[in-house]
Amino acid sequence: MPVYNAPVKDMQFVLHDVLNVSESDIPGYADLEMDFTNAVLEEAGKLTSEVLAPLNVVGDQEGCRLENGIVYTPTGFKEAFEQVKEGGWTGLDMPEEYGGQNMPYVLGTAVGEMFSGSNQAFTMYQGLTHGAAAAILAHGTDDQKNTYLPNMVSCEWTGTMNLTEPHCGTDLGLMRTKAEPQADGSYKVTGQKIFISAGDHDMADNVIHLVLAKIPGGPDGIKGVSLFIVPKFNVNEDGSLGARNGVSVGAIEKKMGIHGNSTCVLNYDDATGYLLGEEHKGMRAMFTMMNEARLGVGMQGLSAAEAAYQNAVEYAKDRLQGRDVTGVKNPDGPADPLIVHPDIRRSLMDQKSFIEGARAFILWGASLIDQAHRAQDKDADGLVSLMTPVIKGFLTDEGYDMTVQAQQVYGGHGYIEEHGMSQFTRDARIAMIYEGANGVQALDLVGRKLAQDGGKHVMAFFDLVKTFCKENGDDEALKDFIEPLKAASKDLQAAGMYFMQNGMKNPNNALSGSYDFMHMFGHVCLGLMWARMAKAATSALAAGTSDAAFYETKLTTGRYYMARRLPATALHLSRIQSGADTVMALDAQAF
Amino acid sequence: MPVYNAPVKDMQFVLHDVLNVSESDIPGYADLEMDFTNAVLEEAGKLTSEVLAPLNVVGDQEGCRLENGIVYTPTGFKEAFEQVKEGGWTGLDMPEEYGGQNMPYVLGTAVGEMFSGSNQAFTMYQGLTHGAAAAILAHGTDDQKNTYLPNMVSCEWTGTMNLTEPHCGTDLGLMRTKAEPQADGSYKVTGQKIFISAGDHDMADNVIHLVLAKIPGGPDGIKGVSLFIVPKFNVNEDGSLGARNGVSVGAIEKKMGIHGNSTCVLNYDDATGYLLGEEHKGMRAMFTMMNEARLGVGMQGLSAAEAAYQNAVEYAKDRLQGRDVTGVKNPDGPADPLIVHPDIRRSLMDQKSFIEGARAFILWGASLIDQAHRAQDKDADGLVSLMTPVIKGFLTDEGYDMTVQAQQVYGGHGYIEEHGMSQFTRDARIAMIYEGANGVQALDLVGRKLAQDGGKHVMAFFDLVKTFCKENGDDEALKDFIEPLKAASKDLQAAGMYFMQNGMKNPNNALSGSYDFMHMFGHVCLGLMWARMAKAATSALAAGTSDAAFYETKLTTGRYYMARRLPATALHLSRIQSGADTVMALDAQAF
Repeated sequence: MPVYNAPVKDMQFVLHDVLNVSESDIPGYADLEMDFTNAVLEEAGKLTSEVLAPLNVVGDQEGCRLENGIVYTPTGFKEAFEQVKEGGWTGLDMPEEYGGQNMPYVLGTAVGEMFSGSNQAFTMYQGLTHGAAAAILAHGTDDQKNTYLPNMVSCEWTGTMNLTEPHCGTDLGLMRTKAEPQADGSYKVTGQKIFISAGDHDMADNVIHLVLAKIPGGPDGIKGVSLFIVPKFNVNEDGSLGARNGVSVGAIEKKMGIHGNSTCVLNYDDATGYLLGEEHKGMRAMFTMMNEARLGVGMQGLSAAEAAYQNAVEYAKDRLQGRDVTGVKNPDGPADPLIVHPDIRRSLMDQKSFIEGARAFILWGASLIDQAHRAQDKDADGLVSLMTPVIKGFLTDEGYDMTVQAQQVYGGHGYIEEHGMSQFTRDARIAMIYEGANGVQALDLVGRKLAQDGGKHVMAFFDLVKTFCKENGDDEALKDFIEPLKAASKDLQAAGMYFMQNGMKNPNNALSGSYDFMHMFGHVCLGLMWARMAKAATSALAAGTSDAAFYETKLTTGRYYMARRLPATALHLSRIQSGADTVMALDAQAF
Repeated sequence: MPVYNAPVKDMQFVLHDVLNVSESDIPGYADLEMDFTNAVLEEAGKLTSEVLAPLNVVGDQEGCRLENGIVYTPTGFKEAFEQVKEGGWTGLDMPEEYGGQNMPYVLGTAVGEMFSGSNQAFTMYQGLTHGAAAAILAHGTDDQKNTYLPNMVSCEWTGTMNLTEPHCGTDLGLMRTKAEPQADGSYKVTGQKIFISAGDHDMADNVIHLVLAKIPGGPDGIKGVSLFIVPKFNVNEDGSLGARNGVSVGAIEKKMGIHGNSTCVLNYDDATGYLLGEEHKGMRAMFTMMNEARLGVGMQGLSAAEAAYQNAVEYAKDRLQGRDVTGVKNPDGPADPLIVHPDIRRSLMDQKSFIEGARAFILWGASLIDQAHRAQDKDADGLVSLMTPVIKGFLTDEGYDMTVQAQQVYGGHGYIEEHGMSQFTRDARIAMIYEGANGVQALDLVGRKLAQDGGKHVMAFFDLVKTFCKENGDDEALKDFIEPLKAASKDLQAAGMYFMQNGMKNPNNALSGSYDFMHMFGHVCLGLMWARMAKAATSALAAGTSDAAFYETKLTTGRYYMARRLPATALHLSRIQSGADTVMALDAQAF
């Protein structure tokens, strides 16, 4: 069975050595002292490795089942969910007035990585609840907040997000679900929603569905979509549960992975719903939460890669196969461990250098969200909005590739289900799709985010890189980092310039390069993160740390990224600069 | 349910326009006239699309089951297997004296692509039989050939290859299975073999296992391994089946994909075996077939990509979502089809340009095998041996990525099992692992094949590229092809040079770059194929073909590859030239 060990030390390094969280003036960050974050992370690490990780394979093998309209989760999920609730983990970064602990999102994100890494399918139940609660928190009336949030923060009730319908996913303007206004101010919601994660289950007393639907007579397309709260059980005035609402589970989808999560077809039939936010402003309400939701999915790319990597490393150390060509390393054994072989090293270094760079990127993004929300910093909000499609798209693509690499280390043993390596790839695959398929992330980045606020945020990003390079350009110890970062950043700027010069006359010149741009942006972000981590490591070494090996390893891992991964920007640039012609030339019937 | 349409026209283009097979002086090629190959391919296309393709999902969903020692294949497999046998497809390229049709391997390969593309798991039963029969043909005594081959060529009996044991896959020198010599010249084989594809089933009267084992007292390690024929049922003198032999199925593996194939744990317990070839020369006998076997697996990368692509194209044409940013394309519908969007195009062009390039590469490789075997051409043998790890490693890596891209076109509908897109990726994943994991292919390429015969074959490859570029360098119509090919080939040569200069002092400098080298070699091969296809297309256009659209599409698709895919060689070169330092620097415990 695969292991999961929470990467507490690496998280602490990012939080304290790189982001210096406890010295930040973001409200609430002063609490994030080393000992405190360590206690939280250690505790979460214990729960995730001891309780959630062993259930990961169980969830995959058993899946969820629908019997007589009731959805049953896999063996052990219910008990584990109780433990998670009892530990207060579900409301870690939610407001205290609704039972949360009001901790910064950056800490919630580190804890979230452990939850997702140990059991992605299980963690989605609380993840969706968190998203739905956050939407109610941002757009609900006081009455709605008081009715739903305390039970959602504690996960006594869970939540869902209902967007997709059979004929529309990305293009929600085509939506058919209707919400008819009633005399009492409520609505009757009717329609079918599909792909509803954590859509129904046996682990909570109620499920609070957030449902996008159209109020008849409203504007056409996406501008006529509103958001509704549709509880599985109606909630009485006194907070007790009333009658079953008109929503039922049509089916549980058979999926490639995340079998432990009940992905449902939900049928709404005159279900009572309550408008959340304003009429016809449903997309806006849903999208308020988008940065966090997409960052959360990007994190799944990272967490899956971390979990798969941990097991690949163990296997590479244990499995004896072949001999080191430069000299026998295990003379007493019949063969040397896999890890002596250069190509296994290459694979493990690809994984390790991605994972650690991605973790820094995610936590930096989370700290920007804190800065935006807790310090009302609009620039931080703009910057993290710009980077959100990169976090989501790049990290889930790369994270998936890393699970495939980790699986490959096992050879044939990675292909059979016994070792759990197949599950990591099958589970990780969904993250490239949900919360907006990665092609849509690339479109969002190039089509919207680049030009947002007059291009202010992308300028701010380049300034950040430039300033870092200028401030540290003379540091001989950082030479291996600054030069590659400059080159990669220059590639990214050249791509942006190409879009500006050529996208005006033909938007396809920009959009044909959007996917490459998202990836090169991701590489530059990870390059920046590695440069910042290298600076933190050299500082610690210069200060005479007692843990020199740890910081030396950071530098070596970072050098690998800069030498072997970051130069991908040049390839992406050359593709982008080849323009739209070869991409768009064929008639549809020629495919 | 996914569709499969045999790509007959594209195959004919490669066979006739590019390879000019019927004008070749390879013995047997004169028969390969346009009408003849068309008849064969059309017939195979009918069988595969109508009979095998519909069973692909059935095989995935039902899998194989073991009951009371008997392995049952999925519903419909047995009947389909009868149809395949009746059509004579199993012996297409086998000798006539054993019931085959003695057609060139190049045609067998084209047909094989259809079989694998329509149903990979099903096709493996005959594929393994073909491999085992080929080994008996090459190394068996006349008696062995007469005993086994007629029934194996017709697939009345099927075959298996038994290499892997629980503790050894790549490093077969660690093998523990024993073969004790008996007084009558036979052996008693005892041991456990795992991951045995088509290991047992209910579709044939007998299964002929080829088993690697050690004869006690022989040399240590890989030099003491011999190959044995171990039939499931002993064969009497008169050819009738005798008693059950001492081989039993321990389990059917639960795998990520190819569920329709019975991947078995086989337990040998004093099973009667017959030496195939010489004592202690088992690896040599097994590896005689390696070029074909690995080319066959490389073909699975291509065929999976083709099948997934066909469905992605259909979906992209049908699914209405969003609007073309340059102007509405489907004004009467609620939205435009996905295929109008540049990033969907990019994905489809990635797939299309890979698939067509890969097909040309595979068929060229198959024609070299024919040249080697039918015309006893040692240079052809050397060249195809050099390219075999590239065909296997590069095409299965890329083929897998293409199935992932095809799945992505479906969004959430690609993640659920309903549309079959998940199966394409799950099935394709194995091809990166079996017949030597792709890391081992890279090692074979850089550690053995490059230097083989004094580097003669790699020189011959570069000469081929150079000659083509020289001969066609003045052709304005080929400008988009020749220049990128030259640049990519230069990158590849520079990488080879780097290995020569730095691999001597430290082999890790070469081996750390082996995977990148395999991929850059693959790109150069596909670049060469596209240049040759472009030349064929321009010739056809110049000659006033009546099918100009077909040839124009070839040129456009090729230009895409040259502009967007081939430049990857520069990235691979830069990684290789960064050397082994960052790859090998960490202590094993630092991972």
